Amino acid sequence: MLSIRDPVHGFIRADPLEAALIASRPFQRLRFIHQLGFTFLVFPGAEHSRFSHALGAMHLAGRVYDALCGTGDGLLPPGSSAPERRLVRAAALLHDLGHAPFSHSAEELFEESLDHEEMTRRLIALPEIERAFARHGDGFEPADVIRLHAGSHDPRATPSRRLLAHVISGELDVDKMDYLLRDGLYCGVRYGSYDLERLLDTMLPLEDPASGDWGIGVEEGGVHALEALVMARYYMFTQVYFNVTGKALELHFNAWLEENGCRWAADPERFLAEDDVSTWTTMRRSPSPHARAVVAREHFPLAFETREHLSREEKDRFEELLPGLRDRFGGGNLLLSNSAKDPHRMGKSRSRVLVRRFDGSLEPMERASQFIRHLARIDRYRVYTPAPLREAVAAALRERWTPPG
Amino acid sequence: MLSIRDPVHGFIRADPLEAALIASRPFQRLRFIHQLGFTFLVFPGAEHSRFSHALGAMHLAGRVYDALCGTGDGLLPPGSSAPERRLVRAAALLHDLGHAPFSHSAEELFEESLDHEEMTRRLIALPEIERAFARHGDGFEPADVIRLHAGSHDPRATPSRRLLAHVISGELDVDKMDYLLRDGLYCGVRYGSYDLERLLDTMLPLEDPASGDWGIGVEEGGVHALEALVMARYYMFTQVYFNVTGKALELHFNAWLEENGCRWAADPERFLAEDDVSTWTTMRRSPSPHARAVVAREHFPLAFETREHLSREEKDRFEELLPGLRDRFGGGNLLLSNSAKDPHRMGKSRSRVLVRRFDGSLEPMERASQFIRHLARIDRYRVYTPAPLREAVAAALRERWTPPG
Amino acid sequence: MLSIRDPVHGFIRADPLEAALIASRPFQRLRFIHQLGFTFLVFPGAEHSRFSHALGAMHLAGRVYDALCGTGDGLLPPGSSAPERRLVRAAALLHDLGHAPFSHSAEELFEESLDHEEMTRRLIALPEIERAFARHGDGFEPADVIRLHAGSHDPRATPSRRLLAHVISGELDVDKMDYLLRDGLYCGVRYGSYDLERLLDTMLPLEDPASGDWGIGVEEGGVHALEALVMARYYMFTQVYFNVTGKALELHFNAWLEENGCRWAADPERFLAEDDVSTWTTMRRSPSPHARAVVAREHFPLAFETREHLSREEKDRFEELLPGLRDRFGGGNLLLSNSAKDPHRMGKSRSRVLVRRFDGSLEPMERASQFIRHLARIDRYRVYTPAPLREAVAAALRERWTPPG
Amino acid sequence: MLSIRDPVHGFIRADPLEAALIASRPFQRLRFIHQLGFTFLVFPGAEHSRFSHALGAMHLAGRVYDALCGTGDGLLPPGSSAPERRLVRAAALLHDLGHAPFSHSAEELFEESLDHEEMTRRLIALPEIERAFARHGDGFEPADVIRLHAGSHDPRATPSRRLLAHVISGELDVDKMDYLLRDGLYCGVRYGSYDLERLLDTMLPLEDPASGDWGIGVEEGGVHALEALVMARYYMFTQVYFNVTGKALELHFNAWLEENGCRWAADPERFLAEDDVSTWTTMRRSPSPHARAVVAREHFPLAFETREHLSREEKDRFEELLPGLRDRFGGGNLLLSNSAKDPHRMGKSRSRVLVRRFDGSLEPMERASQFIRHLARIDRYRVYTPAPLREAVAAALRERWTPPG
Repeated sequence: MLSIRDPVHGFIRADPLEAALIASRPFQRLRFIHQLGFTFLVFPGAEHSRFSHALGAMHLAGRVYDALCGTGDGLLPPGSSAPERRLVRAAALLHDLGHAPFSHSAEELFEESLDHEEMTRRLIALPEIERAFARHGDGFEPADVIRLHAGSHDPRATPSRRLLAHVISGELDVDKMDYLLRDGLYCGVRYGSYDLERLLDTMLPLEDPASGDWGIGVEEGGVHALEALVMARYYMFTQVYFNVTGKALELHFNAWLEENGCRWAADPERFLAEDDVSTWTTMRRSPSPHARAVVAREHFPLAFETREHLSREEKDRFEELLPGLRDRFGGGNLLLSNSAKDPHRMGKSRSRVLVRRFDGSLEPMERASQFIRHLARIDRYRVYTPAPLREAVAAALRERWTPPG
Repeated sequence: MLSIRDPVHGFIRADPLEAALIASRPFQRLRFIHQLGFTFLVFPGAEHSRFSHALGAMHLAGRVYDALCGTGDGLLPPGSSAPERRLVRAAALLHDLGHAPFSHSAEELFEESLDHEEMTRRLIALPEIERAFARHGDGFEPADVIRLHAGSHDPRATPSRRLLAHVISGELDVDKMDYLLRDGLYCGVRYGSYDLERLLDTMLPLEDPASGDWGIGVEEGGVHALEALVMARYYMFTQVYFNVTGKALELHFNAWLEENGCRWAADPERFLAEDDVSTWTTMRRSPSPHARAVVAREHFPLAFETREHLSREEKDRFEELLPGLRDRFGGGNLLLSNSAKDPHRMGKSRSRVLVRRFDGSLEPMERASQFIRHLARIDRYRVYTPAPLREAVAAALRERWTPPG
Repeated sequence: MLSIRDPVHGFIRADPLEAALIASRPFQRLRFIHQLGFTFLVFPGAEHSRFSHALGAMHLAGRVYDALCGTGDGLLPPGSSAPERRLVRAAALLHDLGHAPFSHSAEELFEESLDHEEMTRRLIALPEIERAFARHGDGFEPADVIRLHAGSHDPRATPSRRLLAHVISGELDVDKMDYLLRDGLYCGVRYGSYDLERLLDTMLPLEDPASGDWGIGVEEGGVHALEALVMARYYMFTQVYFNVTGKALELHFNAWLEENGCRWAADPERFLAEDDVSTWTTMRRSPSPHARAVVAREHFPLAFETREHLSREEKDRFEELLPGLRDRFGGGNLLLSNSAKDPHRMGKSRSRVLVRRFDGSLEPMERASQFIRHLARIDRYRVYTPAPLREAVAAALRERWTPPG
Repeated sequence: MLSIRDPVHGFIRADPLEAALIASRPFQRLRFIHQLGFTFLVFPGAEHSRFSHALGAMHLAGRVYDALCGTGDGLLPPGSSAPERRLVRAAALLHDLGHAPFSHSAEELFEESLDHEEMTRRLIALPEIERAFARHGDGFEPADVIRLHAGSHDPRATPSRRLLAHVISGELDVDKMDYLLRDGLYCGVRYGSYDLERLLDTMLPLEDPASGDWGIGVEEGGVHALEALVMARYYMFTQVYFNVTGKALELHFNAWLEENGCRWAADPERFLAEDDVSTWTTMRRSPSPHARAVVAREHFPLAFETREHLSREEKDRFEELLPGLRDRFGGGNLLLSNSAKDPHRMGKSRSRVLVRRFDGSLEPMERASQFIRHLARIDRYRVYTPAPLREAVAAALRERWTPPG
């Protein structure tokens, strides 16, 4: 067993399959993808890469598996080398392979309009990943991982596979369980903290009577741990991921890529050479003001921001202001961000987190917790502009924009 | 006040002078110098740069200043904006400017045989640093920082300046106070931990009766905190800084630089462009096997290592074996490291750490602590060689090398 | 300076006045008053007494003082020996002197219908406290402490004294700042945790434009720390202080005291002899089933509980059921608890916690935080009864009690 | 499963046998035995009882069992309900039953010269413990626990039982693994901390080639965790357990018991009524100055203490001074303590802790660790005397006692 030190989880072990996957080029590339894009320019501690996050997600996948099978409904066979456990760990390890340079910063800009999930699939299909499975996979193959990544939507999947799909991507998945703790630690904030041990302790597989689907639920005694997780995520988004300066750098980065027509390679072999080091090196040499805005942190200042929780109607109203603004100040002088996140529709999956009450009845977490129930969707616009225009843009927006009474 | 989040110290504040220094190019360059060189390839969490270490050292310089002036002997005036306090913080902030790419990994390879201290001085003398002091320095100038870095050896320095020089570089300086906590946290090991609060609480300025020099001492009640610091350093060296794989990568890195005759620029303007990103980019493109050994982690395996605590006599005896070994296997096939550190002759300074006993008498920490007294000097050789030669080299060394009875 | 180790705050220092107060009989008596009454029979770690809580409150009073005067509006003079700082520390140290055995468990049962605040005043008026002030108080006398305890209602109090009164008792006082951390630690739960350093860092004195009164407010950047404190308190009440078993033990304890007509002495000298040791000793020897219910933990089981957040109308409706229930099962067979707490009308004080927004405007914390705004008042009834009656009582209540739609 | 919150270990689970044992009178009595005797009068946080320590020891016994059987030599069958695992947990739970009031403070003063181990056996033999085993013990009986407590000396014991005996009492037993963490936490000191997870991770059963006995050993990678444990114990003894004031209170306590001819009951039923509450109540009422010295903390001050590490020869020499001292000042005016502990002959067991080196060879921890090797035995005398005699006693001892050159 390979044994790796980790700031969040202490020791992370890897069996021979996992060690071979870690040693592969697609995985080693993650060392050079900042987990939080340009956030390290705002929170200096956040210099960590996707590499250790992926290790942490694998580690947690094993722990969640053990928690779910310890509850004894027989869906998942126990034991540290149970095949399904190995599969879900491998899937967690590889879940982020396809991230573009600087992670989410410019994740839309793939050739062929790919997304990072599709790139992940292409990288998993590379011969070297195939060889690792052939040699150490005990019958599993890359396609099993890809199917698990595809989620619980596969109607042919067994109940246990559909349950495991939620471990990788769902309301309570190992991705966010790891990144909240890890990003909080590296940023030096306390927002990301929640009681991991308690959460694992109270997790269990639950069948949703509404959908018939199996998902990850929580016992009533764990509602506070669940609340803490949801709120940790909420705080991390408002304070760190949607940080006002970080967003400015991201906008310039996208503008620079766009002005050069840059796209992340769709071919996996070419994609392997694209990482933060190569991108930063190119940006450093670029004469573009947008590149310089990032590299020398000479970004547009904020001219205006809306409140944090816009309604649908307010959003429409705000967007109607934009054409006039662009006409007056010039589209190139306005960088616009829309930061939006629904705090408790956590994953893409439509499935709900259920709470099993002491009397055995089930209810969705939004009913079980008054905190979660009242959490408002984050949705905010920000407008950045060159310093000389700042006052004029701000005044123009203040004049036209009436926040709700 | 600029306020910066930090994983180790929580919040770090910077006044306008400090903020201007942080914004300067020499300081921003530190974002791209890994604090621990290639260690991140062994301990994945160790992706942190010199940037936050330098901030942490500045923060601790203020705390040590407050601790020392709180003991009331009048050497240092109290108050958070006392000029001497500002000076020692600025000196701590800038103490690492001159580090070469990958920090200590190849720190000998400067043009003109400079060392990183000299490069630090050259960078501090740049006009942009000068301007920051002129604008916000309240009378201080870069030369004051340089003199403080020069240490306590300046015979014209006042007692308070000599005391402050120990804060920057000495047996109990803010450099190691910060790096032990920081490196331990990022590596995910517990070795680096010691009781910082207790140590600050029991620190005091003491005049060494032997030398007449002022230094940083500790009250008897703080001996355990001091022991913990010394042992933390000992463990970090044996387990992390002298890690067997990390050393191999360093040897290949030096071999690659040597074979190309690369030297770090002596000119500060050119030096500003040399960092880990530029160096890694060059190494990636290099066809040299030594470059590939680092980039693809295909390094020579360890063939042999001596025990951890060689005596002078053993070292001589080991070195006598080397010519024969090189003759037989070829010098290019042998990479040799000598990892050495004296655990409680901590800084370059010759001054001692004194402990003030409850009865007011003074004794050196080596006498006050049985742990520190018995700590042996770390001194070990390791020989790395290509895998096909490994067994033969190991056998040759086992045969010739007799460890002491 | 006396230096005392503390699990929560590390080191607590006491000057000669504080040391003399700590050594007095009324303060030493607190060693034998469990901080959380009978909670140690449910959470075994909670064996701590009011003694260290009072030390912790004193320590925090100094820290809050420093935080408030560091913001520089000149209300409070800085310096670790400022007279007002010494006063507020002494007031915090002595704020809990008058607690009856087992703290809040039977705090209504004083002779002369005293409450524990009045007993605190009587103990502070004892000659030994007077002597401590006369000797070390630098002009302060016990009456100053008593006036500070009396709160901000004294119309003759200066603005600074009214501000300091909030440090002792108010929405953001040192009592709850300490007990949340301390009780959470000893109980082994994480609920009580909040970011103390951040809260101190963002505290400031604010004048409420509505009332003209000075109070403790928080900068916008500290809203999350404030939210965490409010939620910590909410969780501690629902999970620990209103624990179902702890409440049962308290009801039996009160029933035992009532059946014997026991009352806590109104005379302070006699009161000094009444603590948990003397009370437990008497209870042990008592043949009363209520005493045995506590001592041998043979308490009535829970028969019924309402939901956690009753409305006023529901409460009235529930209370109307009680006479019929008592008629049918016998009043002695029913123990009724009503656990109620308003989570963010935190102290008795009517003053509000204001948040100073980045633009300088003020708003109450209930507006600044969606979490705090939506926190519902805790208000719940529980009925305990002997085991043989449990089912019948439960059925009778289920039948008559309709929870709201 | 009963689930209990614990400040040190988070959650502790108890199965039906364990829950029945916890509910028994001998175990509940431990709630009223202070874990550290009178230490709470010096370190106010140390108000914890043997009750939670015993729960913690049980919890750790399970974890150590899992660590030892995870190494796969087949001595111990895996599984959370393996019979041997249940046995060693029960033995850990009950290992401290026989402690006299205030724990070690006056542990010599049993009727019939019993010791607390013998009293533990008598309590385990009580019918209520027998009944718990009969009902839930799955074939185990109290005698199995008693045999395990008896240690590894039983020549008829199987290798696995001899190994388990070391879990209860040995160089690396759960007693000290728990008390170091627990006492450190409650006292508010950091001395007791060591890396529990790393230690468990590197533990393994090893057969000592010298004795043929099985014991608990450590892999080479865990030497630092082992060192930290040994040093934690060393610090806790020098700073807490042998605290100068705590020792004074203990001496008065013993003197008070002796002057009244008090002995702890040899009959287990009578012994059940003897705890800290009953003893403190008696002491409070006693007119004896020794009782008052404890209750009102009016103890003799320290007149003299030797250095911490006396040699055998020095001890003899010191003891020769005592008759003359008693003649001159009166035996009743002198309270003498001898605090002695060998820091790495940790348990009573003669067996050694072995370290398994990377190459598979074994060596005793004293050889593997330079820190442990050099730890000196603690052995110190202290003399306390009434304040008026203090100077004279101190002078007499200083004059006659020459510390070694």
